Amino acid sequence: MSSMLNFSVSAAVEGTEAPPIPRAQAWGVEYLENPSYGELLGLSQGVPGTAPHESVLKALSAVSADPLSAKYGPILGETALREAYAEEIRVQYQLSPSCKGKGGVTGQDIGITTGCNMAFLTLIMALCPAGKSSVLIPLPSYFNQMMVFSLQSVKPIFVPCDTTNAFKPSLASAREYLSSPDRQKEEMKPKMICLVSPNNPTGSVYTHEEIKEWYDLAKEFKVALILDETYRDFVEDSNGDRGIPHRLFEEEDWRETLISLGSFSKGYRIPGHRLGSIIAGPALLKHLTTICDCMQICAPRPPQIALSTLLPSLRPDLTASSKALSKRRHLFEDVVNSVEGWNVASIGGYFAYVSYPSDYSFASSTLGLKRKNLTSEDIAKILATKVGVVTLPGSFFMPPTSDDEAWENDVLKGGEILREDKWLRFAVANVGDDVILKLGPRLKEMNKLMGLGE
Amino acid sequence: MSSMLNFSVSAAVEGTEAPPIPRAQAWGVEYLENPSYGELLGLSQGVPGTAPHESVLKALSAVSADPLSAKYGPILGETALREAYAEEIRVQYQLSPSCKGKGGVTGQDIGITTGCNMAFLTLIMALCPAGKSSVLIPLPSYFNQMMVFSLQSVKPIFVPCDTTNAFKPSLASAREYLSSPDRQKEEMKPKMICLVSPNNPTGSVYTHEEIKEWYDLAKEFKVALILDETYRDFVEDSNGDRGIPHRLFEEEDWRETLISLGSFSKGYRIPGHRLGSIIAGPALLKHLTTICDCMQICAPRPPQIALSTLLPSLRPDLTASSKALSKRRHLFEDVVNSVEGWNVASIGGYFAYVSYPSDYSFASSTLGLKRKNLTSEDIAKILATKVGVVTLPGSFFMPPTSDDEAWENDVLKGGEILREDKWLRFAVANVGDDVILKLGPRLKEMNKLMGLGE
Repeated sequence: MSSMLNFSVSAAVEGTEAPPIPRAQAWGVEYLENPSYGELLGLSQGVPGTAPHESVLKALSAVSADPLSAKYGPILGETALREAYAEEIRVQYQLSPSCKGKGGVTGQDIGITTGCNMAFLTLIMALCPAGKSSVLIPLPSYFNQMMVFSLQSVKPIFVPCDTTNAFKPSLASAREYLSSPDRQKEEMKPKMICLVSPNNPTGSVYTHEEIKEWYDLAKEFKVALILDETYRDFVEDSNGDRGIPHRLFEEEDWRETLISLGSFSKGYRIPGHRLGSIIAGPALLKHLTTICDCMQICAPRPPQIALSTLLPSLRPDLTASSKALSKRRHLFEDVVNSVEGWNVASIGGYFAYVSYPSDYSFASSTLGLKRKNLTSEDIAKILATKVGVVTLPGSFFMPPTSDDEAWENDVLKGGEILREDKWLRFAVANVGDDVILKLGPRLKEMNKLMGLGE
Repeated sequence: MSSMLNFSVSAAVEGTEAPPIPRAQAWGVEYLENPSYGELLGLSQGVPGTAPHESVLKALSAVSADPLSAKYGPILGETALREAYAEEIRVQYQLSPSCKGKGGVTGQDIGITTGCNMAFLTLIMALCPAGKSSVLIPLPSYFNQMMVFSLQSVKPIFVPCDTTNAFKPSLASAREYLSSPDRQKEEMKPKMICLVSPNNPTGSVYTHEEIKEWYDLAKEFKVALILDETYRDFVEDSNGDRGIPHRLFEEEDWRETLISLGSFSKGYRIPGHRLGSIIAGPALLKHLTTICDCMQICAPRPPQIALSTLLPSLRPDLTASSKALSKRRHLFEDVVNSVEGWNVASIGGYFAYVSYPSDYSFASSTLGLKRKNLTSEDIAKILATKVGVVTLPGSFFMPPTSDDEAWENDVLKGGEILREDKWLRFAVANVGDDVILKLGPRLKEMNKLMGLGE
């Protein structure tokens, strides 16, 4: 019991890490008090860097003036938006418009939520009884998802990503885990496999073939496959055009296994309006309606109404954003890989996962620090406060406790290399190419500061 | 496992009742197919009946055109809105503007959520570990709160309301329960007392003195007092003006025990924009920030920015709404009480709890029904489908199972009379006085239909 409160707070909440982004932003503020190298380069948060399309702002303004938008709407979203969004999904995933057979996606398969974090929490509440559930999830993991597991007392079983193969998660480890005799009882089986593609934090983009293997695994072991596709609008094909994220919606029985989450925050650049989506079969959406009624009643209505007629007209804008971001990612790779000791390990969507020079970890003496073996958080802090480049350390995406025993218990085999903790997440979407160009000289200054190459 | 799904849905979710409002609305649709007595009188849902103030619509429109509002905002709300709302609370509760001492309310005590249901769920997540918690709550109870308990595996212990005293909950029963030797161990003690005033569903408005007794009880037994004040803008003083809901914020140490929930949906008539509030001490808000980050990231930004400068100018509008509603409640009482056998048992805020003629329960033969002892759901359905008056039956606000054993187990003593199940909830806020006037003849038609007074 906190000394300030006359009642007790749940241990699960007490034990959940605070949101980490404000911590990184505080480092940036520290730099700004003594900006040695010019402006702060804010590469920590995955937010759109530009304003919404002019037509979206116009529609939002017009709709908000209408008293109708101030009323409650349907729990799972405006019918018009659900229909319109289903059509966007059919176009992007190149599905037959008639949705013949059971494959395809219709408005009945769409639920609109107040952002994608809420969509994820809703699913955890729907499928994972607190204190009695586990889920399979690749490591590194998005911190908000780990926070949800902690808050809801759900145990994550981490599937290690292959650091030498663009941070793809190990299907073999997951299969071995699911196949173990201990896991055959219903109550010992994970409730779901959670994938994020394009990934947060690593930027890794899984191919259709890879996602299909996970789908088949989920199907075989009768667990749900949750695919967080927040960054689906930034999947690139071999020409740099907007690509097809996967072909699972063509499966006749996808609704029995797959749940796909999405966001309007990134593609349409309206995070402040809070709109996300769940694509799932009506048999599951029925249950999610009950949860959503208790959580949101309905998602905010004005952006729903505003977008419901605009979506087809925004396709060229999505394509243009996707191409611009693709160009920026290539520029980022060129810039970062050209600096001694820096290496882009994986990149895609909004993010890049980058390793810094291995000597950094041992730079304590150069910096006059007492501690040896600097962590990624140490490095991220130095990078932000000293040279004004704000990123998130890889440690923000690792389990909160990582002593040997906890590691053995929580992380499937093959992941030891992740303990090297030598990565930083760069968000590349919220800045212009000019900022990326300034990054090269800053990283070189960082190398100097850390005693490298002198 | 549902035959349509290849994975299992949590038993807590499977076992939670679906949102009941759509069921009642379906009855209204059935009436509209054969509207014998004219228009449908929709008195089921607690929603504002008129448009937001013109200045609110204007500000919402202007703010939504600004790309800034499309960006993420702070997790617990815009600083400007938190400050402005604290000032509104100080004005409404007549607190000293300087907030000297620890009493009073400041912006630091305010958290902005995506509606009040979300505020409530956030608190249940914060204070009630799933599967190991109980809460004390008056019966009848708001169904969304009961659904949250069910979803999160929290056990409600129902404190019966006194049907002969405006549905005030029995403090003595609650005290006896908390004092029982079995309840002295921390893990056997309820985590909180939840009150709603003005109440949903009963309309009962608790006086300051009554609320203070509950506060003292919570303090004595070291549990939290959650006060849902969604309808706080419609508390009326003896002159019919906007009254002071309670004086707990004057207590020097209120932050150690009290948590007050609110909504912008009713007073400002913007439910579709989804804004709610939590008033609590910073020691608790720190934990709620972690949960809110995982649930909402931030509440929708445009209504927050729009309202942050408007609130003081809207006070006359709030007063006018409150007075109009007060007049409507008096009209409603006159109309309903003048019909034979109908009686307004309690009324306040948005709702009235009304008993129908006792002979109704035995009207099966008149209606040609086989079943005897008609429930309030039967009566509400007949009232809606036959004479076009849509209300919610009292059974929607009772425990889902009410067999003798469950009742004994869940409801504290003194509540047997509630099993008579002879009440209907009328929402009086969303219709004009003209609709209330039409209600009298309809209730008389209902009496005829049920074989009364012929």
